Formats: sequence, structure tokens, C-alpha cells
Amino acid sequence: MNTRLIDPAPQNANFDAAVRDSFARQTLMSTMGVRIERIAPGEVDLAMPHSPAFCQQNGYLHAGATASLADSANGYAAYTLAPAGSDVLAVEFKINLLAPARGASYRARGRVVRAGRTLSVCLADVFAIDDAQETLIATMLSTIIVRAGGVASKS
Amino acid sequence: MNTRLIDPAPQNANFDAAVRDSFARQTLMSTMGVRIERIAPGEVDLAMPHSPAFCQQNGYLHAGATASLADSANGYAAYTLAPAGSDVLAVEFKINLLAPARGASYRARGRVVRAGRTLSVCLADVFAIDDAQETLIATMLSTIIVRAGGVASKS
Amino acid sequence: MNTRLIDPAPQNANFDAAVRDSFARQTLMSTMGVRIERIAPGEVDLAMPHSPAFCQQNGYLHAGATASLADSANGYAAYTLAPAGSDVLAVEFKINLLAPARGASYRARGRVVRAGRTLSVCLADVFAIDDAQETLIATMLSTIIVRAGGVASKS
Amino acid sequence: MNTRLIDPAPQNANFDAAVRDSFARQTLMSTMGVRIERIAPGEVDLAMPHSPAFCQQNGYLHAGATASLADSANGYAAYTLAPAGSDVLAVEFKINLLAPARGASYRARGRVVRAGRTLSVCLADVFAIDDAQETLIATMLSTIIVRAGGVASKS
Repeated sequence: MNTRLIDPAPQNANFDAAVRDSFARQTLMSTMGVRIERIAPGEVDLAMPHSPAFCQQNGYLHAGATASLADSANGYAAYTLAPAGSDVLAVEFKINLLAPARGASYRARGRVVRAGRTLSVCLADVFAIDDAQETLIATMLSTIIVRAGGVASKS
Repeated sequence: MNTRLIDPAPQNANFDAAVRDSFARQTLMSTMGVRIERIAPGEVDLAMPHSPAFCQQNGYLHAGATASLADSANGYAAYTLAPAGSDVLAVEFKINLLAPARGASYRARGRVVRAGRTLSVCLADVFAIDDAQETLIATMLSTIIVRAGGVASKS
Repeated sequence: MNTRLIDPAPQNANFDAAVRDSFARQTLMSTMGVRIERIAPGEVDLAMPHSPAFCQQNGYLHAGATASLADSANGYAAYTLAPAGSDVLAVEFKINLLAPARGASYRARGRVVRAGRTLSVCLADVFAIDDAQETLIATMLSTIIVRAGGVASKS
Repeated sequence: MNTRLIDPAPQNANFDAAVRDSFARQTLMSTMGVRIERIAPGEVDLAMPHSPAFCQQNGYLHAGATASLADSANGYAAYTLAPAGSDVLAVEFKINLLAPARGASYRARGRVVRAGRTLSVCLADVFAIDDAQETLIATMLSTIIVRAGGVASKS
């Protein structure tokens, strides 16, 4: 499969700092204990430990928590390729839950499929991790809007 | 629009208790302060207060938190029509974020569109609420699997 | 459910003619025998007869044909609220197939849920029709981009 | 990205013939001039020439035609891993249109992400082809139900 963007070119030389700065302001990420594992052009990996505070009725990670992790990974993957001073917001996303979400920790790998002036499309895979083994538990396809002006509301 | 199921017939006379029991075991719902507002055949309304702990970079409710609320509303709407002793799990969902999520509180209204023996389809609208005014901020279309045996893993 | 836009206000007084003109240029619609049944602000209904030429392996209408009908209904519903001289293009859509698609004819009802300056969101229900009875066979949630300049490529 | 299933194991030794037989009964595929380019466990590639009969208002391939191609590629990718005598039906799919669809021909590559006893998940990329150059124009994420009994209606 070749869905991933080849040789994405960042427009913002400080994309790494821009991602870290915005991520630090996402309180949901700190509430869930999520941290950035990796930032590269068009790619962001996020990781979080399992916590009994974010589960569904059977003790698995709630689909909404899995979606939160994947949504931020995709949003920040898109943000690595956005111009300086812009903001990114999710327009919509679709997630397939592929296996029960129960690991010691979780990792979402967000990747840019298409980087547009207005709209970007990203794909994230989410894995449950036990010992060193990764199990694919979800995949998300997202549409993200890049706003030149920054923080304004979504159009 | 006629997307909603007409005269849905519960198969479990105790559907109200079944929903409340399962909901009480979803730790993400208690962590986010979500409570059940209404349960009827094919319909579940959930509400949560705004909290600074579940936000994105601009202080709006994180799309993942909005999705968590809508996913549980849809799952439990499907569960009102499931046989006694069964369980429901999200197979996949897609959410469109329609407006910035910033209210004093939020309400998700989950409704069954199709109730199948194996798969159900639900639609949820999410509103931000300020004073008595509701603003539509998101809509979610979900596919849910009904498992006769209960807690087992998803197939 | 209140997902539908209340009192949508057309920006183009000639929205009816604009929809008919663009629709007439969609060769897939004439190939499939689709005709416009109804145009109103934020609403377009399309109908097509069943044809053995557009089926899947069991003689039902192919999911792609159902999606084609719903996609055009949603796109033109959005177009009724777009400025004169603009164009609309599907950014993405998601469709749930709810029942086997086998009727004498089919009808898709596209409705605007959110009309934005850049992005609109629409919901379409698709029905199979036999005698006078309608059966809901699919529902589609779409994101549509409005391009002021018209025919240019999608951004 | 590792979204693709590793070493998928066909349950039906005659999966190649089963795919070709079912595909030959999809009249939409012959109407659109689609042919099978490649079948392997968990993988099906379909190709079609551009035709003025399946376009939208600007002469690009209609999003519904692109979706038809991708939906069949994903369905048959899932079918390569299904038991003998079963049938597959799309439960739902979501497609992102990434670039204008205008090539001499088009190719969809369907790949299984998860092969389940009841539900499979597939990802398809669609390319426009001019001379030997491929441009990614769409990506689709699908949920497919495997029916042991065969042709019966979807549950």
C-alpha cells in the first residue's frame, strides 16, 4: 500500500516546536497521560499508558479514548506540514475498531496521506502494546482543515 | 428526514436497567462526568458538563471527547433493543465536527436507525448548551455489533 | 432528531436552475437514468429506476450505484445554498448499507445539516420503492467543499 | 504504516476462481468496463478505462464511480480470505476524494486490514493512470460482512 505521502516538505522550519507547543495545550492529552514519541514531516506517534479511568464496560479502553489518541496523532501529523502561524482542526474522522483494546500501553501512528492548502487527509493506526508486542486495534481516516489565521472557528 | 427507526420494539423488558448497569461500568463516562438523561426504546440521551480537563489546544472540547459522548449514546441506544444477556460493541463510527465545541454543557442524542440481529446502525447528534440554547456541534453515524454471548471479544 | 438545518437561506436566487444545469452535465446520472424529483433550499431528491446494468453479484443494486445516487443528492442539496458561480465537490462521504437494495425504483433524499462558507455537511437517506412503499436501504453522511471560483481542482 | 494484514491465510483453496465467478456476476463492473488485474490472498486490484459515461459536472470521474471501483476491490479482497460457499456484502464504507479523478484509466488496490469470522475491514487506494504515472485520487476504508450461508440478506 502506498497511501502515505512521499517526501513531504514542511513549510514551517519549526514544525517540531509548533507541534509540541500546541500539544501541550491539549488538556485531554495530559489528562489521558499521552506523550509525544516521535515527530517527523507528515508523521506523529503518540503513546499512552493503559488506565482504568478511560474504559468501557468490559475493562477495555473506551472507543472514544482510542479515537482521542488517533485524532490527535492525525491532527499533529497534518500540523507538521502546515504553514507557520496556522492552526489545524478535525473536520471529520472515521475509525474502525479492529480488536479489543487492552494493553499495558497504546501507540497511535498518524501519517499524512494528502497535504492540501486547505484540507489534509491522514491515516492513523493504533496499537495495543504488551511486552514488546504490538497488536493493531484500530485504524482512523481523518479530514483536517488548515486555518491560516490560526485559532478562529472552523468554516 | 426519516432516518429514525419507527416504533422500535425492545426484546429485553429490562432494557432500562441493562443500560444503566452497563453505563455504570464505563469508567470513561464517570471520569468525564457524563450522566444518563433519558432512555427509551431505540433512544439514549447523555449529558456532560464542560470541563477544562478534556479540551483541545484552543479550549474547545476535544473532538475525541465529543466522540466519546456520541459513541456511548449510540451504543446504548442500540443496547435498548438488544436481547437480554447480550453485549454491544462499536465496530466503527464516523463523526463530523460541525461547530466549535464550547458550551456550559453538552448533550448527545443517540438514535437507532436500523436494529439488526447482528449489526445495528445509530445516528447521534451532539449539542453544546448555553442557558437553554442548544447548538448542534457534531453528528455521528455508527455501526454496532450485538453479541449474544455477552462480554466476549469482537468478531 | 434535529440534524437538519432550520430555515436555510439560499444565497443564489437562481439555485434551482443552477442545480439543474450542473446535474445535466453529470453523465453518470443520465447513464443511470437518474432524474431530479424535488429541489428546495437545502434539499434535493433524486430518483432512478432499477436497472440490471448496475447490480452486484446477487442482483441487488451495487453499493457503488447506491452511493452514486446519494452522493449527487447530497452534493446538490449543498449546492442549493452555495453562492452563484461557485461549484461543489465531495471531499469525502461514508455510507451505511442498511438493507438489500432491490426495488422497482430508488429515491435519495439529500439534506443539508450544516452550510458553511467553505465546507457543508449533508445527510442522505436512500429508499427502495415498490408499489408505494418505501424501505430505507442506506444512509450517507457527506462533507462537501464549496469553491467560489468554480470548476478548479479541489484543495 | 503497517495497516495491512501480514501473511493472510486463505480458507478456500479456490479463492481465485470464487472471486472471478462472483465478479463476473456484478453487472456494474461490466457496465463500467472494469477488469480484474490481480488476485492474491487478501489483495485484489481492479482497473477500468476512463469513460465519458461515468463523470460528474466537470468531466472528472464521478465520486460514485470511484467509490464503485474501490468498493468492489475491497469486497473481493475480503472474499479471498472467506470460507468456500460464503458471500461478502459491504456493511459500510467511507471514501476520501484526494485529487480530481481524470486519467486514461483507473486502478483500485483493495487490501485486507483485518479478516474476521463475521466482519472484515479493508483499505483501498484508487489511482488515476496516465502514461505509466499513477496519481493517488482516493482512499476507502470499508467494513464487510462474511455470510456463511451465501446469498441471504444482510443482518
